[in-house]
Amino acid sequence: MAAGRPTIIDVARDAGVSPATAGRVLGGYGTPSPELVRRVQDSARRLGYRANDVARSIVTGSTRVIGVVVSDIENPFFARAVNGISDRARAAGYEMLLVSTRMDLARERSAVEALMAKRVDGMIVASASVSEGGHLRRVREAGVPLVLLDRRNDGAGAVDSVLLDNRAAAQRAVSHLLDLGHRAVAVVTSATPSESRSARRRRSAAEFPSSLRFEGYLDALDEAGVTCDPGWVLRCDDADAACERVRDLLVTRPEVTAVFATTNVMTGGAFRAIMDGDRRCPEDVSLMGFDDHEWSTLVRPQLSVVAQPAYDLGAAAGTVLLGRLAGPGSRSAPSETILQSSLIVRGSVAAPPA
Amino acid sequence: MAAGRPTIIDVARDAGVSPATAGRVLGGYGTPSPELVRRVQDSARRLGYRANDVARSIVTGSTRVIGVVVSDIENPFFARAVNGISDRARAAGYEMLLVSTRMDLARERSAVEALMAKRVDGMIVASASVSEGGHLRRVREAGVPLVLLDRRNDGAGAVDSVLLDNRAAAQRAVSHLLDLGHRAVAVVTSATPSESRSARRRRSAAEFPSSLRFEGYLDALDEAGVTCDPGWVLRCDDADAACERVRDLLVTRPEVTAVFATTNVMTGGAFRAIMDGDRRCPEDVSLMGFDDHEWSTLVRPQLSVVAQPAYDLGAAAGTVLLGRLAGPGSRSAPSETILQSSLIVRGSVAAPPA
Repeated sequence: MAAGRPTIIDVARDAGVSPATAGRVLGGYGTPSPELVRRVQDSARRLGYRANDVARSIVTGSTRVIGVVVSDIENPFFARAVNGISDRARAAGYEMLLVSTRMDLARERSAVEALMAKRVDGMIVASASVSEGGHLRRVREAGVPLVLLDRRNDGAGAVDSVLLDNRAAAQRAVSHLLDLGHRAVAVVTSATPSESRSARRRRSAAEFPSSLRFEGYLDALDEAGVTCDPGWVLRCDDADAACERVRDLLVTRPEVTAVFATTNVMTGGAFRAIMDGDRRCPEDVSLMGFDDHEWSTLVRPQLSVVAQPAYDLGAAAGTVLLGRLAGPGSRSAPSETILQSSLIVRGSVAAPPA
Repeated sequence: MAAGRPTIIDVARDAGVSPATAGRVLGGYGTPSPELVRRVQDSARRLGYRANDVARSIVTGSTRVIGVVVSDIENPFFARAVNGISDRARAAGYEMLLVSTRMDLARERSAVEALMAKRVDGMIVASASVSEGGHLRRVREAGVPLVLLDRRNDGAGAVDSVLLDNRAAAQRAVSHLLDLGHRAVAVVTSATPSESRSARRRRSAAEFPSSLRFEGYLDALDEAGVTCDPGWVLRCDDADAACERVRDLLVTRPEVTAVFATTNVMTGGAFRAIMDGDRRCPEDVSLMGFDDHEWSTLVRPQLSVVAQPAYDLGAAAGTVLLGRLAGPGSRSAPSETILQSSLIVRGSVAAPPA
């Protein structure tokens, strides 16, 4: 315990009242007598006791705090989404308890548990998993409103969610490349193709954004009557791996004239490989990235991207959660809010070489 | 109040005991009788009351939460520093209550007030002000350990701080340009030159990183016997303004052969201006930026920068705060931890044209 921080117990002892009475006086609840109010307030002042939402929360059951769990605050997508949540929360008089789980499900589980123990009023979670959701189901079972951000979760049960239309976003981007005349279009993805194919069959299962974007890529090829060559699918987990895989592809797959990177992390790696390689962009090979980066217009050629409305996704999640907390609508069926992306075409995309 | 979330008051009423007794039983404090323990635990189970750090904190005075206030979580410097804090906090069993104030001092004041009311055990603040610190002084007066991150604050009084050696970092970067033969070196800064000059006289006053970096620029010119031309000092507050000022400079000041941008935000704007202009980089004009961006090596020429150890700054702030919370050292004098930057020289810097 930090020096100089009297608890409500200290105040109660000093005033000669029960902690519950001290809590009622200092929290402004109930109808303590004027004499009790004076005694408790005198003790609180003398001891330097501070107005305390913790004591209040014991009585009201509300802490005016929402918990937010994201997988990586250094990812600009999540940083911007968090600012969207934060602005909405603040406007409604809520503070935000944020945890960045570094993409670790164990860390997410303990963060959610801790946030429950801290009695947050509601929670917004971008989970590291789309299947394991026991910890999220327990949030709902405790009656705490929960909104899933950016990905669904099969284990969470029926719950509010705010998502990008990832499949349509990718489909539109790849169709743009096909419309320009490209036929051999490679994809840089963290999705495991076999998993994705099985998920594709059981449409109800939750999928990661990366898997949905891979599905959108396949949709676009299907529509154009192009058969996907497995050699065009570059499976990798980080920017360095993306860079290596694209570098190899540019050498070993001369037929490929366009590359679609399905995450902001992959996009940096793919761009680096093209910078380092011998083929010119966009004359020999086009690049379509994901997320509109600060550097999209600083590089040459400027980068074409699928731009996600990250701030709006966060703000929408905040709005849905605050709606639940506001009361009347809190018993209604779970909602699903789907936002659309924008396709921004810049210098990195052109028709394939004749 | 959310449906289905019984408070300790509900449990106490159901068990026929006082809230204080219910709190002692459920928090595991004091020596209630076995019969009371059984009654309260039965009621808690029946009502679905969850283990609750809030109730515990009333008794122990500790919430195992630290509060972190930064000016903008979308700034990659702060996002990375926050991950450094978060990793340290988690390793020590603390959760982190993060607030991003969007560079608004009023918002910072209310965030600090709210965090105090939530009874955080300690706080790390990167303040939006270096002079107005009444809200920070009150944190200290309440006995809550406080660590300042990235900038000092005159109003906070004697307090732990973790800082970059900003002045030396800038001095070294500009000296590198001067050593290459540059004489007319422009600086892009958010510091107000007149304020900086007066702050320079009263060395004890706290200054923003931007002001200290401007001082370092002047130090380097002084050392090299170069008189600073006021036309070389480009005062601006955001990337767009930086871009405009540098664009003008490249046209109106042909004698300037190098530009030093003193923040990561300014660096993007300055680079954009050079991309858009008629003078070649680095043949005609060199650019030295601040912070090592993801895009530093994606652009051509690759960007030379002063690289801050952002993660390490956050981790160091976490370590200092946790040391205070751990106890024995908590009454010692305030510490000041100063980390050094690295100078990374890449293609955007070369000797001036002959």
